[in-house]
Amino acid sequence: MLLRMSTLFLRTLREDPADAEVPSHKLLVRGGFVRRAAPGVYSWLPLGKIVLENVARVVRDEMNAIGAQELLLPALLPREYYESTGRWTDYGDLLFRLTDRKGADYLLGPTHEELFALLVKGEYSSYKDFPVTLYQIQEKYRDEARPRAGILRGREFHMKDSYSFDLDDDGLRRSYAAHRGAYIRIFDRLGVDYRIVSAVSGAMGGSASEEFLATAPTGEDTYVSCTNCDYAANTEAVRTVVPDTAADPSAVPALLELDTPDTPTIQSLVDRLNAMDLGRTYTAADTLKNVVLKVTQPGETKYEVVVVGVPGDRDVDLKRLAESSLAPASVELFEADDWAEHPELVRGYIGPQVLAGIGIRYLADPRVRPGTEWVTGANRRGFHAAHVVAGRDFAIDAQVEAVEVRAGDLCSVCGGELRIDRGIEIGHIFQLGRKYTDAFEVDALGPDGKPVRITMGSYGIGVSRLVAAIVEQSHDDRGIIWPRAVAPADVHVIGTGKADQVEVALRIGEELRARGLRVIVDDRKASPGVKFTDAELLGVPTSVVVGRGLADGVVELRDRAGGERSEVPLDSVVELVAERIAAEG
Amino acid sequence: MLLRMSTLFLRTLREDPADAEVPSHKLLVRGGFVRRAAPGVYSWLPLGKIVLENVARVVRDEMNAIGAQELLLPALLPREYYESTGRWTDYGDLLFRLTDRKGADYLLGPTHEELFALLVKGEYSSYKDFPVTLYQIQEKYRDEARPRAGILRGREFHMKDSYSFDLDDDGLRRSYAAHRGAYIRIFDRLGVDYRIVSAVSGAMGGSASEEFLATAPTGEDTYVSCTNCDYAANTEAVRTVVPDTAADPSAVPALLELDTPDTPTIQSLVDRLNAMDLGRTYTAADTLKNVVLKVTQPGETKYEVVVVGVPGDRDVDLKRLAESSLAPASVELFEADDWAEHPELVRGYIGPQVLAGIGIRYLADPRVRPGTEWVTGANRRGFHAAHVVAGRDFAIDAQVEAVEVRAGDLCSVCGGELRIDRGIEIGHIFQLGRKYTDAFEVDALGPDGKPVRITMGSYGIGVSRLVAAIVEQSHDDRGIIWPRAVAPADVHVIGTGKADQVEVALRIGEELRARGLRVIVDDRKASPGVKFTDAELLGVPTSVVVGRGLADGVVELRDRAGGERSEVPLDSVVELVAERIAAEG
Repeated sequence: MLLRMSTLFLRTLREDPADAEVPSHKLLVRGGFVRRAAPGVYSWLPLGKIVLENVARVVRDEMNAIGAQELLLPALLPREYYESTGRWTDYGDLLFRLTDRKGADYLLGPTHEELFALLVKGEYSSYKDFPVTLYQIQEKYRDEARPRAGILRGREFHMKDSYSFDLDDDGLRRSYAAHRGAYIRIFDRLGVDYRIVSAVSGAMGGSASEEFLATAPTGEDTYVSCTNCDYAANTEAVRTVVPDTAADPSAVPALLELDTPDTPTIQSLVDRLNAMDLGRTYTAADTLKNVVLKVTQPGETKYEVVVVGVPGDRDVDLKRLAESSLAPASVELFEADDWAEHPELVRGYIGPQVLAGIGIRYLADPRVRPGTEWVTGANRRGFHAAHVVAGRDFAIDAQVEAVEVRAGDLCSVCGGELRIDRGIEIGHIFQLGRKYTDAFEVDALGPDGKPVRITMGSYGIGVSRLVAAIVEQSHDDRGIIWPRAVAPADVHVIGTGKADQVEVALRIGEELRARGLRVIVDDRKASPGVKFTDAELLGVPTSVVVGRGLADGVVELRDRAGGERSEVPLDSVVELVAERIAAEG
Repeated sequence: MLLRMSTLFLRTLREDPADAEVPSHKLLVRGGFVRRAAPGVYSWLPLGKIVLENVARVVRDEMNAIGAQELLLPALLPREYYESTGRWTDYGDLLFRLTDRKGADYLLGPTHEELFALLVKGEYSSYKDFPVTLYQIQEKYRDEARPRAGILRGREFHMKDSYSFDLDDDGLRRSYAAHRGAYIRIFDRLGVDYRIVSAVSGAMGGSASEEFLATAPTGEDTYVSCTNCDYAANTEAVRTVVPDTAADPSAVPALLELDTPDTPTIQSLVDRLNAMDLGRTYTAADTLKNVVLKVTQPGETKYEVVVVGVPGDRDVDLKRLAESSLAPASVELFEADDWAEHPELVRGYIGPQVLAGIGIRYLADPRVRPGTEWVTGANRRGFHAAHVVAGRDFAIDAQVEAVEVRAGDLCSVCGGELRIDRGIEIGHIFQLGRKYTDAFEVDALGPDGKPVRITMGSYGIGVSRLVAAIVEQSHDDRGIIWPRAVAPADVHVIGTGKADQVEVALRIGEELRARGLRVIVDDRKASPGVKFTDAELLGVPTSVVVGRGLADGVVELRDRAGGERSEVPLDSVVELVAERIAAEG
């Protein structure tokens, strides 16, 4: 491959696009890799297409290496399949839905569990056929509420999705482990810095699951990792460890109602309590905050009113609640209209003491466990109650993971302190189990002639997102620094301006190409400054500058990542570059 | 590549699928290349995906060779762009339309003229930037009324679409010629038998255009070709040549009204005329048939009533009329309700004599030209008129190509006789001109500082359809006969059953792979008959059968296309196969 900048369909930009917030978005647009076609929908220009293909090639390579077989399914899918598994409804507004000329409902595939399960059901029937793993690399569609950050979270994006089909749980674990290994090799080859974190499976159904997160301060996902051991998890998946703080409930005085006017906030309540001379000092962590939620099960239109209790020094994390304890229901806060419909709930002064009596379920953070003592609402405007003991004065229907995880929380594995970081989800592996094979009755005839229900795994890599994640991790203020495996070229040869310099640049480019290297030659009529600026923006790992030194028979070699520059004799530059790149590989 | 049938995700079928009418549909499904996901929507299984990629690779190769640059645009496109060019409306029911969560309208791209024109406008601004040709290989969407024949006419299909951008008409002609050459090389390399025919440009807008039709009796397109010269054209594009038959109008008697009850058909009218002793013998070709049409311009809701006159021995071809003379309007026949609304038109007895007086346009076949004499309706129930002379007794507003082309019609180039055949449209090249660049004001600043409006070409290849077209041309009653360039493998090695035969088959396969060949090894526990049947169905060009001859140190070589079989020594089979295949290439 030899691309000439004089004819390449590429115009770099000096200014960041107005809507760009994160470095990858700015640099991929400025470098002419992508262009926006609509919110969350991008076109890949020639260099972007090359980079995207480079990522796809590594993914394909490692998928083939674990025996996965490549297919290509349609994006336009009939409603009926997704109706069978409930995802037509569960996916909510995330799904692009459409109707054909005959009025039949279709969707644009967000992932393809249904179709792959049906394919396997259609082709395979005997236990001898299994296991099998199938994959595709293809456009996916999700109508994100806030498409953001360029191709980091798009509405049309490129994904590798694979599906394993096994006869039993051990087989599923092996398929899962094979994918985990392949993913490690893929992300290592692509030069990504990533963490593998425990995850919850969300709308996909299923059990064990892990995410691969590219570490990046601009990431949308937060994850915790233990400062002491190897534990790492998506915040939604963190299990809370509670230090043993419960007092002997029999030593706690009886519930005491307190007149607490003008205490609309936790802090004002704490100040009032401490001014009351109740024999101890209170902090926000001693108060019990009760949050009223509307919980809607998939496919239902009516919601259930549920109250969640958390310590007053913690905020409720609705996403965590929805994706772990309450999945697959959707969860919303009570709003003005809802309060008006439920006069039995005294806004701002709710305590769990009355909930069982009025038939409302009470879910509590693990810190709110039987025997713990709290100050909470007295269900009467202006009044709170002290000495309210869980299990004595109120019942807990279930413990749920409901609060925001904080740095310093304890590790559920070793008890060490957790830290919180941000990352970009680039891969996700699931042990799905039988949700989809149950829906479609995907069975194999066992050796004994009895049907065996197949168990599935589902594994995704965001191919287009990976391109952005790599740029997030690998850039400086002048541009992108591509790892060689994904770079649009191996070498960027710059003829700085004069005709003879450009001519030599083209000759060097041809010789490098003849050695199997991928080359961009800047043969434009442009100033050396423009060419150097563009080269740094485009981020090809190695540059060769053919400039004034040509008169003395030397050219300059530049390394984009390290910034090193060295003069080398013109007649050995091709050999040297080829050797260095071969040595890297 | 080495695929083992024992693990390949492939189950062949012995029965034709119930909905399959054409050979490619039957064989691609039976051979496990594709599976139907919805009407006109197909999944590509592993061997199908390989074949599809093989076709795409040849296309990509030749596009790159003419300097076209590969991009990848989204399929999900905002309405506004297609609104600007009128295609949001013009495409009618063919367009898949959808709405996002915010209520914004989108479509699934049927072709991408708008987006490419906008991309070029966004990146390029100077005459020095041009010419440029861009392409992509990507899924396209069209909501066909009758998706048929498997992947021959799908609703989601794979297409190569490219677009040229030139400063002037000469440039456009060069870009067009470059594409024409590339298409010839592509279809030659793929082993397709095709014809290049003149075409009309239809809904795409623009001027010169040609279609590449794979010859096939199952094709949906008909084309004419001259039995005497090289002329070939899509039937819509045929220009009618009229033998000079006009009499001297002054020699024709005055219009004569005839009482012709019970003559509902042309034939009954002709019989009646000949029974009337009018001094000559009439044939259907002497009568003038007048067909009433509703013509609706794009974006309009009201139709215009138009009458088309054709010789009584010819049928009106609505598609031809709509795609040539009346494009881009849509054309429908008058129906019962319409007749009721227009009592001034006497159904069955319309003559053009009154049309000018009631403000209805009269369009006529070129055979109905000034000076010709006809028998036609008298605009009075039960009456016809003879000696009706065009230009004397009625006016013609325009000559149109309105009748069905017939074998034996005359060639517009040499006057030879035309023949009619069927084909499958596998490629289409258009000189679009400025329809899209006008809509988006795509200009380049010329050398004189004045803007130059860019002119476009648009060029498509149906990549998935090509797979089917190749099968239509290349199969027998036992299965597919793949040309090597597209075959899922070069060699199909069959171990006929016993363990040692399978082992040798695998060893041969490995050795062939080591020589860079793509190999399928049938290592299944299955009968020789099943394996032979599958090999013929799958259609790999060369087979090696490791069977009973193994004891004597020989294996059998089979050629799928020619059917030749020969025994060769085991220890030279790899060398021999590799040599033969190298010799082909």
